Order: sequence, then structure tokens, then C-alpha cells
Amino acid sequence: MPFTRLDEKHKRSIRKLISPDRFSDGESHCNLHARDQSFHPPCPPDAVVWPKTAEEVSQILAYANTHGIPIVGWGSGSSLEGNPIPVCGGVILDFSEMNQILDIREADFQVVVQPGLVYQDLNHALRHTGLFFPPDPGARATIGGMIANNASGTRTVYYGSTKDYVLRLKVVMANGDIVEIGGRSAKSSSGYNLNQLFIGSEGTLGIIVEATLRLTGTPEDFSAVIATFPSVESAGKAVFEIRRSGLSPAALELLGPECIELFNIQADLGLTVSPTLFIEFHGASKAYMAEMIDICRMICEENGSEQFEAGLGRQERDRLFEARHDLGEMIVRNHPGCAILVMDVAVPPSAYPEMIGFARREIAKSGLTGYVFSHAGDGNLHLNIAGETGNTDHWQVIDAMVLRIVNNALSLGGTATGEHGVGIGKRKFMEAEHGRSLELMKRIKNLFDPKGILNPGKIFPEDP
Amino acid sequence: MPFTRLDEKHKRSIRKLISPDRFSDGESHCNLHARDQSFHPPCPPDAVVWPKTAEEVSQILAYANTHGIPIVGWGSGSSLEGNPIPVCGGVILDFSEMNQILDIREADFQVVVQPGLVYQDLNHALRHTGLFFPPDPGARATIGGMIANNASGTRTVYYGSTKDYVLRLKVVMANGDIVEIGGRSAKSSSGYNLNQLFIGSEGTLGIIVEATLRLTGTPEDFSAVIATFPSVESAGKAVFEIRRSGLSPAALELLGPECIELFNIQADLGLTVSPTLFIEFHGASKAYMAEMIDICRMICEENGSEQFEAGLGRQERDRLFEARHDLGEMIVRNHPGCAILVMDVAVPPSAYPEMIGFARREIAKSGLTGYVFSHAGDGNLHLNIAGETGNTDHWQVIDAMVLRIVNNALSLGGTATGEHGVGIGKRKFMEAEHGRSLELMKRIKNLFDPKGILNPGKIFPEDP
Repeated sequence: MPFTRLDEKHKRSIRKLISPDRFSDGESHCNLHARDQSFHPPCPPDAVVWPKTAEEVSQILAYANTHGIPIVGWGSGSSLEGNPIPVCGGVILDFSEMNQILDIREADFQVVVQPGLVYQDLNHALRHTGLFFPPDPGARATIGGMIANNASGTRTVYYGSTKDYVLRLKVVMANGDIVEIGGRSAKSSSGYNLNQLFIGSEGTLGIIVEATLRLTGTPEDFSAVIATFPSVESAGKAVFEIRRSGLSPAALELLGPECIELFNIQADLGLTVSPTLFIEFHGASKAYMAEMIDICRMICEENGSEQFEAGLGRQERDRLFEARHDLGEMIVRNHPGCAILVMDVAVPPSAYPEMIGFARREIAKSGLTGYVFSHAGDGNLHLNIAGETGNTDHWQVIDAMVLRIVNNALSLGGTATGEHGVGIGKRKFMEAEHGRSLELMKRIKNLFDPKGILNPGKIFPEDP
Repeated sequence: MPFTRLDEKHKRSIRKLISPDRFSDGESHCNLHARDQSFHPPCPPDAVVWPKTAEEVSQILAYANTHGIPIVGWGSGSSLEGNPIPVCGGVILDFSEMNQILDIREADFQVVVQPGLVYQDLNHALRHTGLFFPPDPGARATIGGMIANNASGTRTVYYGSTKDYVLRLKVVMANGDIVEIGGRSAKSSSGYNLNQLFIGSEGTLGIIVEATLRLTGTPEDFSAVIATFPSVESAGKAVFEIRRSGLSPAALELLGPECIELFNIQADLGLTVSPTLFIEFHGASKAYMAEMIDICRMICEENGSEQFEAGLGRQERDRLFEARHDLGEMIVRNHPGCAILVMDVAVPPSAYPEMIGFARREIAKSGLTGYVFSHAGDGNLHLNIAGETGNTDHWQVIDAMVLRIVNNALSLGGTATGEHGVGIGKRKFMEAEHGRSLELMKRIKNLFDPKGILNPGKIFPEDP
């Protein structure tokens, strides 16, 4: 490993760059930053710092770059592919003390924030403006983490991903340079789109210390639907037909019967245990939404829907979507003594029913418990599989299954990760997915971070 | 100038790489590729080639890179900032023989096309599918040119720019390498977003030889509105309020009275000569659109609107938008013996009324004829100013005015180019707009094109 571990001299130096109470090499702090929400094995950093300004981040990076010390940005540790696990040691930059809203520019539909701000807190602060920041990965993710992973969620099918809401970034480069990129106008054709290079780069090209985000109007009204189906495949077919019809649902989620069962047990939802679609429409008009729901009902019925319950009130809808957001946690609670492998592939719309069928057959063959749920409207499939911790048989089966499922997604023209990022777990698929363009990514990485100190061991397959 | 001019030996070599009937160094061919639709002075290339395959493009680039010969891609020459003018000579790659639709993947809402395809021809071919490619720069632009410039137009306020519709690109790099980037799933968080680096790079990072585009459903219905106002400023205020209200018009165009006068003379539209908004709504329901138009009417009236004509039929709406698309040409025809400077700045929404007022005062002060029109919903202002060809007084006044108007846009947090690209004319503003991040752009340019053969003299201020 070519990286420098933090000895006492380095620790003293870094402590001097930041207030001593915002530096820790204590075991408990390091262990709290050793793992994210994924099944990937933990690895503690050598130290954790809590910067308060871009300048502090700049000084730490300049020092780390000089001495070859790994630097990993940390939001809330809610990622699902080991993205911020400091696998090569070094220093974690925890942004929880840079969590302020710096400016709400209501008249521009924009907000300027620090990276440690949690997106739910942003939307709470915006609630009186009639504006909101739509991407919703579910967990209490920070804006910095969401940008680094191009996070998305249940509303992405209508509102887009994090990448669609970033106008301007302040980034600290590996050598400590502070650079501002992008602008504040709604559109621009001026030069290269650097924002999009940093978005989704998982902290490997620079550290985001400030972001100007585009906001959008809170919908006047919404309407939620639950539809059940005789099979996951028929529900998948309905998803495809809904998309093809030109309807624009604001959420289009597919849940396997095993997920519904969990909802009933753990959230007391009292739903029919069947493959189910959660659908939501946002709009300015009740008449319009009623029309959309009629078309939606027709399509669902044509695809064998057994129950179609429309017009849910806000309270019931909120309970449904809360349960949906908590599903990952529910699965963990349902399997004590197990680790949960979280899959995340996406395929083109027409391949979605085929993909979901393939994944279910794989689970059935494995004899393990798996949960199929997905941002179906985006062709984005999640699959959580429980394996006993330390049971090597289980994990061999799971590893082989992951390989087959991801390769199936790639062969259908899809991606190894729809929204969780490459992190540690998807590195091995990068060459198959990207071919020669992976070389271009590497060259950009080497250009921006020649010593490779920024989040080493992620994205690129040959990294340590 | 460090570039190699094409001598007879080079011409023989390049002719051998391509069928001889698809190579020309004849004066008329070269002159046809010496200028775009802008006021920038023409400059002929040394030769023009018409490639038919990615492999031919690859071979030409490999040769040009070895010998330091400039290469400029050419779509239809409809750009407005000198973007494809071969200011350093070299070879033009004219893509008019690579203009095929390779695959319509209707079930995926995708299409695979060659770069020389004109977007109107694409939409014509798609007309029976219920799908279309929304960006509409107006002129008969090619998909390759639209991607290279991140083109947008009247519908961008609702549907987005070209960058929002590109899923996958096949690109030939400066050294001849053929690389495929991006994928076919609706979303992905796998690695760096290379697509967005090439989109809007104006042919300076690589040559696009194939694109997979996302399509969207043709709206069920539409409704157009014309509203007149006592002043351009009050119309600008209405634009801002319409955006703020959460209405989602599919077009929101502001036209100065001078443009309306031209429409009446040249297109016989019989409109009231006043500052005017063209507004269009797309939707699946007449009831919904009627509701939106009611809100829109209220906002316009609150801002002093004198006439508000809603519910125009398709024929009248098509005539309006055709006239709007032809406006640039109408202005040219109205000023024989003049060159037309075309301005294109964009500012954040709240700054739009101020920006438009500033621009109009500048025109008034200059004593010249100017036309204000804009994709107002995006804060994107166009300003065409007629100056007599060869009248140095006129052009001194115009140059100084451009400087003040662009600097005003930048000081309001805007951009020097909303949609026309940097080309030749906006290079001098790059440093003011981008600051230190311009250095990052240069480093990427040097990484991908170390000899600088790809469209030299564009984007970067210090280029030849």
C-alpha cells in the first residue's frame, strides 16, 4: 500500500491545522467512521476531523497530499456500497459541523448549503417557501453525500436525480486548491460541464464544501394508489405500460409480497400480501390527477391487477412511504445474526420485466431469503438478501448470485448500480460496463488526484 | 500558429483514408465550410471530407494527430458563435453522409442516431411512435451539432436541453481511439459522468460519431397563449411571476415590439405591436390546461397585460412558432448591407427583469436597431443588433455594448452564453465567468487532446 499511516508527528501537524477538539484518533470515534450501512467489512480510519470551513479542508488536503495520506469525506454514513469506508486508513473529514443553509434565494428557486446538511432538514427549513429539493434517497443522507453519489429515490422517476439539481459547487481539490464551478443561471453553454464530473465521483476527484441547488415548487396536490398483482412479473409489465402510456407518476415503486408481509408485521399496514405497486401522482389539479388515475387503473387491470385502491389520504400515503423508506431497516431487524446484501441494478425500460423475473428465479434457486423491491419506473431494481454472518456457504452462494444478476443487467444494456454508486462492491464490474471509457475515467482521476489520496480503493478495480 | 497546413502530400494521404469522391480541397466546398450563421469573419479550411463510418473518422484523426493538423466537426453550420469556423485551417469533417437513424427502440423510449441527422428529420421519422426528441434550437441543426453545443430552444423551459436527452455516445478521441461512453438505463451511478463532459464541449475534446438519445411522449394536447404588455419590463415581471407560481409552461417566450412588427410585415401575423409573451402549455388533459391558463391570465393581468388571447388552434400556434423560429432570418432580411450581432446571455430568474431593462437601455443609447427576444422562462436573453458591414463606428459601438451587457449578466450571477456556446465570441468572458475552474477545463482539454488539434481557437481565451 503506497499510503502513509498517521504517526504521532502527522497527528500533531493535522491537529494544529484545526481546533484540537475537532480532531480525534480515539477508538470510538474511529470505529463510528469505519462502516456505512452496507455489508462491507468495517475498516477504521487513523483519525477523524470535523472541519468548519473550506479553508480548513483546504489546509488538511494540502498537508495530506504532500505526505500521501488518504482523505475520505463523510456525510452521515448512510451509503450502501461501502463508498466512504476508509479502506486505506488516513483521515475522515466528517462534515457534521458544516451543515448550515447559507442562503435561501427564494426568488431564484435556489438554495446555498454546506455539505453536512441533511436533506430532510433542508426541506423542513424550506417548508414555508412553497419550494423543495426533490431527491429522496430515504436515509438521513447529507447533501454532500448525495452529490458525491448522485443519490436518487422514489421520486426520481418524475423529478430526476441529485445531478439534476446542482447548479454550482465549491470544491477542494486534492492539492488544497479551492475551486468554484458552475453558475446560477437556469441554463448555460459556457465551457465544460465540470459539475457533472464531480457529481457521482464518490469523493475521488475533490471534496465538495458548498453547493448551490436548484429547487422546485411543492406540488399543489398529490394522489396515491396501491395496486396488487398476481405476480411480480405482471406488476413489472404494468410498470412498463404505465411508462409507455405517457403518464408521469411521481413515484412508481414495485414491492414483492415478502416486503408487504414485513410492512404488515413491522408497521401494521394491513395490506394484502401480494406483489404491489405504490404509485403517486403530483399535480396542480384534482381533475387532472383523477384522469391520470383512471388511465392508470385501466392499465393495471389489463395486466391482471386484483386490487386497485386510489385516492389515499395524506396520512395513509405518508405511512406507506415511510414504511417504504424504512424497508431496509425492517429487513435488517427481521434477520438477527445476518448481514444483508443490498443489490442495485438498473436496466432499460423494456428489459425491466425480464430483469425482475431473472432476479426472482435466482433467489428461489439459492434457498435464501430475498426481498425484491424497486424504483420500478426507472428500471432500478433492488434486491436485499439475508446471509448468516460468518456462514461461508451463504456468502459463496450470495457472491455467485450477485455476479449472475449484475451480469444479466449488463447484458440487457443496464448498469451495475442505479443509485448506490460503485464504492467497493461494484468495482469488479466497471470494466465490463464501461469498456475503454474506464481508461478515460482513470486518466481524469490521475489528472485531478495524481497521488490518489482521495477515497482510495473505490470505483477503480485495480485500486488497493 | 503551431499547426500544419495541408500540403499536397497530406492531401494525398487523407484522400487515401477515405473514398476520393468524399474529399475536396476545391474553393467552393471550402468556402461553404468557412462560416456559420454568425457575424464572425469566415475562414476556409484546407480541405473538407465527408466520412461515412466511425472507422474513417478514427483514421483521419489518427493521421491528423500525428501531423498536427486541425480537425473540426461540421453539422449544418447553423451555430451562432463561430463554433465550427476553422480558424486555424485544417480539415472539416462534414457529417452530412452520416445522417441515419440506426435504431428506434420504441419500447425503451430511445433512438440511436448518427451525428449528421437533422433533429426535425428525426422527429418526422418518430411521428407515428408517439415519442419525440424535445430540444428545438430552431435552425435545421444536426444532432451532432446540438450535442456539441448543448443546444436548447423554446421548449427547454419545460423539457430541458440536449444534455438531458443523451444516454450514450460513441466518440472518436484526438488520437483516433473509438470510445463508447454512458449506457442505456434511465439512471446510473456508475463512475464518472463522461457524457456530460463531451456535451457542450464544442468538438474540442472528441468527435461524436453516434448517440443514443432518450425520447419523451408527445403531449396529448397543447394550448397556446398570446399576451401583450405595456412595457418589456412588465412582461419580464410577468414571466418571473409565472415561474414562481409553479405553472409549467412548455414555452415562455418574450418578444419586443420590434419583433412583433417584423412578424406582421414578413409573416403577415396581424398582431398588436406591443411587448408580447408567447406561452404554450402541454398536457394530457384539457381541464388541466384550462386551469393553468386561468392562473396565467390572472398573473398577466396583475402585471398590466392589455390583451390576453388564449386557446389558439394548432394552425395559428404553428404560424406563431414558425415565425418565432424564423425571427433571426427575418432580422437579416430586414437589414440588407448589415451584419447582425447575436447576443445570448442568461441570468438567474430574479435578475431577468433587471437584465432585460439594462439591455434595452443599452440599445436605446447606441442609436442602432436592436431586437430583444428571449427564452424568458429560462432567463435566457437574445439581442440581435444590426450594424452596417464595414462601418467601423457601428462595430465599435456594438463591441462596447456587448461587453457591458455580458458583464452585466455575469455580475447578476449569469452566464455569457445560455445556449449558443462559447465559440469565438465568448472566449474573452471565460475567465470572468469561470475563474479558477477554467484551469480545470484547460487541463482536461490538454489531457484529451494534447496537441490541440480538435477545433482550435474555441472556448479558451489564449488559443490562437
